[in-house]
Amino acid sequence: MIIQLQRDARSEQVEKLMGYLSQKRFTTKAVNTQKGSYLMAIGKGEFDIRAVGFMDGVADIHVVSDDYKLVSAKWKVDPTEIDLGDGVVIKQGQLALMAGPCSIEGEEQINQTIQHLKEAGITIMRGGVYKPRSSPYSFRGMGIDGLRLWFRMAKENGIKIISEVMQVSQIEEMYDYVDIFQVGARNTQNFNLLDELGKVDKPVMIKRGISGTIDELLYSAEYVFSGGNEKLLLCERGIRTYEKASRNTFDINAIPILKAKSHLPVISDPSHGIGIRDHVPAIALASVLAGADGIIYEAHQDPRKAFSDGQQTLNFNQSIKLAENLREVMKMRSEML
Amino acid sequence: MIIQLQRDARSEQVEKLMGYLSQKRFTTKAVNTQKGSYLMAIGKGEFDIRAVGFMDGVADIHVVSDDYKLVSAKWKVDPTEIDLGDGVVIKQGQLALMAGPCSIEGEEQINQTIQHLKEAGITIMRGGVYKPRSSPYSFRGMGIDGLRLWFRMAKENGIKIISEVMQVSQIEEMYDYVDIFQVGARNTQNFNLLDELGKVDKPVMIKRGISGTIDELLYSAEYVFSGGNEKLLLCERGIRTYEKASRNTFDINAIPILKAKSHLPVISDPSHGIGIRDHVPAIALASVLAGADGIIYEAHQDPRKAFSDGQQTLNFNQSIKLAENLREVMKMRSEML
Amino acid sequence: MIIQLQRDARSEQVEKLMGYLSQKRFTTKAVNTQKGSYLMAIGKGEFDIRAVGFMDGVADIHVVSDDYKLVSAKWKVDPTEIDLGDGVVIKQGQLALMAGPCSIEGEEQINQTIQHLKEAGITIMRGGVYKPRSSPYSFRGMGIDGLRLWFRMAKENGIKIISEVMQVSQIEEMYDYVDIFQVGARNTQNFNLLDELGKVDKPVMIKRGISGTIDELLYSAEYVFSGGNEKLLLCERGIRTYEKASRNTFDINAIPILKAKSHLPVISDPSHGIGIRDHVPAIALASVLAGADGIIYEAHQDPRKAFSDGQQTLNFNQSIKLAENLREVMKMRSEML
Amino acid sequence: MIIQLQRDARSEQVEKLMGYLSQKRFTTKAVNTQKGSYLMAIGKGEFDIRAVGFMDGVADIHVVSDDYKLVSAKWKVDPTEIDLGDGVVIKQGQLALMAGPCSIEGEEQINQTIQHLKEAGITIMRGGVYKPRSSPYSFRGMGIDGLRLWFRMAKENGIKIISEVMQVSQIEEMYDYVDIFQVGARNTQNFNLLDELGKVDKPVMIKRGISGTIDELLYSAEYVFSGGNEKLLLCERGIRTYEKASRNTFDINAIPILKAKSHLPVISDPSHGIGIRDHVPAIALASVLAGADGIIYEAHQDPRKAFSDGQQTLNFNQSIKLAENLREVMKMRSEML
Repeated sequence: MIIQLQRDARSEQVEKLMGYLSQKRFTTKAVNTQKGSYLMAIGKGEFDIRAVGFMDGVADIHVVSDDYKLVSAKWKVDPTEIDLGDGVVIKQGQLALMAGPCSIEGEEQINQTIQHLKEAGITIMRGGVYKPRSSPYSFRGMGIDGLRLWFRMAKENGIKIISEVMQVSQIEEMYDYVDIFQVGARNTQNFNLLDELGKVDKPVMIKRGISGTIDELLYSAEYVFSGGNEKLLLCERGIRTYEKASRNTFDINAIPILKAKSHLPVISDPSHGIGIRDHVPAIALASVLAGADGIIYEAHQDPRKAFSDGQQTLNFNQSIKLAENLREVMKMRSEML
Repeated sequence: MIIQLQRDARSEQVEKLMGYLSQKRFTTKAVNTQKGSYLMAIGKGEFDIRAVGFMDGVADIHVVSDDYKLVSAKWKVDPTEIDLGDGVVIKQGQLALMAGPCSIEGEEQINQTIQHLKEAGITIMRGGVYKPRSSPYSFRGMGIDGLRLWFRMAKENGIKIISEVMQVSQIEEMYDYVDIFQVGARNTQNFNLLDELGKVDKPVMIKRGISGTIDELLYSAEYVFSGGNEKLLLCERGIRTYEKASRNTFDINAIPILKAKSHLPVISDPSHGIGIRDHVPAIALASVLAGADGIIYEAHQDPRKAFSDGQQTLNFNQSIKLAENLREVMKMRSEML
Repeated sequence: MIIQLQRDARSEQVEKLMGYLSQKRFTTKAVNTQKGSYLMAIGKGEFDIRAVGFMDGVADIHVVSDDYKLVSAKWKVDPTEIDLGDGVVIKQGQLALMAGPCSIEGEEQINQTIQHLKEAGITIMRGGVYKPRSSPYSFRGMGIDGLRLWFRMAKENGIKIISEVMQVSQIEEMYDYVDIFQVGARNTQNFNLLDELGKVDKPVMIKRGISGTIDELLYSAEYVFSGGNEKLLLCERGIRTYEKASRNTFDINAIPILKAKSHLPVISDPSHGIGIRDHVPAIALASVLAGADGIIYEAHQDPRKAFSDGQQTLNFNQSIKLAENLREVMKMRSEML
Repeated sequence: MIIQLQRDARSEQVEKLMGYLSQKRFTTKAVNTQKGSYLMAIGKGEFDIRAVGFMDGVADIHVVSDDYKLVSAKWKVDPTEIDLGDGVVIKQGQLALMAGPCSIEGEEQINQTIQHLKEAGITIMRGGVYKPRSSPYSFRGMGIDGLRLWFRMAKENGIKIISEVMQVSQIEEMYDYVDIFQVGARNTQNFNLLDELGKVDKPVMIKRGISGTIDELLYSAEYVFSGGNEKLLLCERGIRTYEKASRNTFDINAIPILKAKSHLPVISDPSHGIGIRDHVPAIALASVLAGADGIIYEAHQDPRKAFSDGQQTLNFNQSIKLAENLREVMKMRSEML
């Protein structure tokens, strides 16, 4: 049960509500986000919905049978929009493009990428400064100094930044320098990290776990939302299966299913989804017709020399062409509906 | 190694070739299909390719490093076309549409479906008369009588038939009444069935196994081709994974990968791929941009009353609209390349 | 619903029963096996069980809520015993051992294996004469001549034979020469083959599908049982997962689960289950404590020279030692219960 | 390459070594653990091993071709022993038993469990105070206060504690109150957490990821070891597959494979591995014959009332019996080898 509170609900009113619900054997949790205040009532008891509806301070009540509540499309019919400022908005009906290298490598690479993005008309740049690596001996990213450098250059050029946060202590460190925090596939169920991201007023994109279910992704988003942060994006990036001809098995089914289950924007990551450079555009284009609200992909000046993920990274020519085609397909999709 | 023989190669010439190869420790297998004669040389030995190239009866030699040979794109660069007669051709650059019920149920249903297909401009009808069912107590299809009835009605209306063959003894029985034999996901590695289908001059569409790899699908096609039948289609229909929000996980990656590895047409089956009616169109449309040469989907006059698979079957309105959209997307794809 | 009929039930009595059930909207199927006669009533209707119980010809009634019925432990509490003659019986509380090569290769190999089995006190020999192979160019077995040779030699030495049947036409061919028909992992859902094996009075061991569920294995057994053959064994042989450090993932959970769900004997195949020679004994021994009624494993005079599966095949020394240890563990298990 | 340094190696000596290796294009990482000092040389270059072997400060050199190095059995042949003090040692050849509830619930429950463990002769108690939960609305554990209470009671009774740590900030908090830090399946690739646990002088048990590979588990252990902490245990707890008849698919293959690849002790968690109370003992016993060095399982005074995981939790009677049987099987295993 989601009880939407009035903007000006007073604390006595909320306490009274909580008392009533507690009496009916519901656990309650107050949620205050950037956009509203809610009282979550979790339990199997019963009560008179209308009675609650008429209590002071209550704006609306939604019965949500899913186990995830706040991220469910059952109560919030309008799709969520994520405004990054300067006219950059991620929302249904437009196609958000995010591109850039797997790892931020240095000034020259950042500069080349930014010039490329501007040429391609892309306003969000991806890149990792903290890299989760299976082996402790692999390159683990440029860290906060790399991010600061990147931020300065991106800012000058009107480019927004999405970058992965790996642990709680990095949130504050990174806060001033990113426009979207990315939660990586190995951290989808790092619940402490999700709790803390709930306290932040900055968009968060959560990638589906390496072998996470669609429901688990929604639950993870519920953590952040119920922590106080509504600015959420979901990302399908392929799952682990027995098939080894591709890096992951891109679960294109997840796109329409997530769109139906949740009001949050759904982003597709074809680079990790297939892991083979020449086939990334096919999966990117397909994702648009499956209903994606955005595409995030890896691009690099010289993929063969990229510090990581080179085999799935587009060169700039491929990227320019893909961006064009994506926009054309998006246009067609809009006309088809 | 694939040694293409000249059309008029004489048996002495072939025997001499086989003798030479055997001396070099290669196993040989003569393959005669509708379109050509080949000598497969399997082994790890070495020999002078040019020497063989100059032997009598040899048209060309192809070294194919893949373990599947005849279905590989490495020797046959031109994509395979499947001509069903009456102007119905499945080939790259066009989009073959196949639609119809999961199970053939009776005269009225056949008639309704045919009328629908004509209205939608679809020339190939799918339907099962032999149904593989997990439980022995489920409906197992109308059998050969159903097929004969269907054939008569389809023929009158210029509609081609694709239907599943489950065992060797059914091949002869069905031969006169189908235009394409379908090998189902539970029979992808029924090697005896594949052997026998190699002896038949009629197209065969092989579905990927329930948890088959992409390579296994190509191997299965190699069985049919090396048995003498080049008229082959591959079909991606989703694989079994841990994710239970959809019936299967549609492996859209398989489409560009199969297209790159093989010269055979690749058909997408979104109905089994996602298993949820409302999301079938999204996966169908996405498949086109991923590179599919055709789409096979389930449609029924009244899906709720279908004998099987109702939950993933489109009604005729949805089907009409999907067919239109598929053609538009195909047109756009052609222009994009 | 399983209605056990009296031994001397007359056809009029059965027809009357079927009429009554049909009236109550149940589909009925008469099943006559080596051990009894049953009337299966499938449906969601309701009727007075006691009324049926008192009808002429009825011995007993069992309501089985599982979708598989005849193989369920819910009606047949006593575990099934499989008597191969000459004192060789597979049953709960004993441990059946089956060993031998992947492929039957020739007289000398058969002879060596038989001598080894006798030394090890093993009375059932495994071996393939029809080999399912992914590639059409691989060795596909010695065929029926190999089986005849093997049968003659085994018979002389009091050794029983288990061998894989791949298609319907082989059943009759092989019938006189095998003691147990094996249905391989690629044929678990070859329903025509299962139907035909239901008509045969000879034990059948069904391997779990390559990515088959436990329930699907039970359904496949239901096919054979409801076809008329109660002499059934189930075999866990590992499933396909993302983990590639072993050939398959041996699903040891399946052993206690199958034993709880069904009255049929459960055999463990550690050779395919792990696929690494040195670790086969560990998985074999573990299977006994998990509750297996028998172990089937690959053994060869010289595994490095085996035609197939050499990397997972024990040499005779390893086999002797394993057989001893298995018996000891089985003894301990009996004492523990 | 692992270069073991002499106990008294001086920093000039180490620097000289690092200079030499750097010249040969190796990346070096100095590792100082509780038991020794190592210099890891990662790279593809070549150098004269003997020359390095004779350099001052070098005790020994090991070429390890695996990508994980320090946890590999290729250089450290003797299995690692974990000494928890007071005579409680986890090592090959003995069987470590760890039992207790999923969640610590309160004083009475702790007391009952401790009395039970003493009766069963078990010296290590498991229990969670920080619980990773898919849903933010589920019970998330008693936290540090619960751990302090538990510690006091366990200490008085000579019981050691293993408990899950979920994030970096909890390490210090928990340090004084646990004998083994457990890294849960959702944190196996939480590399920051692993890095920090490398700095701690307390044993760490790492559970295999929910769909982690065997190699990824070893890599995760490499993080902790190369961070400075050799006191490591590996735990197989089942993986996620398509099979839903059990909670997870217990990968018993992983036990002999991990034992062969690494010198670290391998613990089996049958409770999560199968997830069905009545079948937990079968999987536990099987694990011993597969080669496990210890078993961790869930036990509770009244499983039906447990706050979490009740369906897979043994009651005390079952636990007493299992502990006895496990010891008997372990005795037999020792005699078999």
